[in-house]
Amino acid sequence: MKKHLFAGAASAALLLAGQAQAADPTPAERAINYRQGVMAVIGWNFGPMGAMVKGDRPFDKAVFARNAERVALMAPMALEGFPAGSDTGTDKFPTRAKADAWLDQDKFKELMKKMEDETARLARVAKGGDEKAMKDQFGTTAKACKACHDDFREK
Amino acid sequence: MKKHLFAGAASAALLLAGQAQAADPTPAERAINYRQGVMAVIGWNFGPMGAMVKGDRPFDKAVFARNAERVALMAPMALEGFPAGSDTGTDKFPTRAKADAWLDQDKFKELMKKMEDETARLARVAKGGDEKAMKDQFGTTAKACKACHDDFREK
Repeated sequence: MKKHLFAGAASAALLLAGQAQAADPTPAERAINYRQGVMAVIGWNFGPMGAMVKGDRPFDKAVFARNAERVALMAPMALEGFPAGSDTGTDKFPTRAKADAWLDQDKFKELMKKMEDETARLARVAKGGDEKAMKDQFGTTAKACKACHDDFREK
Repeated sequence: MKKHLFAGAASAALLLAGQAQAADPTPAERAINYRQGVMAVIGWNFGPMGAMVKGDRPFDKAVFARNAERVALMAPMALEGFPAGSDTGTDKFPTRAKADAWLDQDKFKELMKKMEDETARLARVAKGGDEKAMKDQFGTTAKACKACHDDFREK
């Protein structure tokens, strides 16, 4: 059992992904795993859009719009991944979230809301299909992500 | 640099979550991190529904319907997390996916599609608000998840 627990963060995360297992993680660990999952899905979809904006890959409006829609769907799911008590992380589930996210919740929620709004706008703009507008709104959205990371996430 | 790479799976996953970092993971590692993120988000939403069905927490139709919709949104995102070459995993990004998912792609895709269909049906049924129907379709959906896990995921 002990051995199981020491199998490392990756295995623990793997055990978590999908369904509960023998060595059940705590509610805080589950929240950490969840919010990192939300961010991973956002990053997976946001990355290719950034590559298109930078010209590192061909601009594909359909893919851009699909990814923008997915990011907009994911964005409102992030906040619930930061419940009270999930601030410090554990050996198995470390977190880069700063204590400030809980100490200054108003600011944290404000920046989260801003990110939600900008991703929703990005999805709308992308549906419109104006490449210049899509690129501009991508930049605005990326700034909203960064603003929160700067204040509330360890480097 | 080397030290950075050895920081462990959890740190690597953390670095990934959100944006690319100095020690860039490989495309296969990114896919593994992404698909585990998708599964984590599905699990986070599916868990409370299961608790309601089992009677471990009060049946809340609104929460059930919201979670069902989220699971239905996530389900079609899973398959792209299993590209060629992401079958073995790495020290930093281990995977429980079995080689069979790539060796028997027809079956894998068939079970994935079944899961997508059942989650979509679950979201529709949940919108209808018939508690009995919601519980029944939850069971059918859980079986579709399990069928794929049984064949294509290590215990």
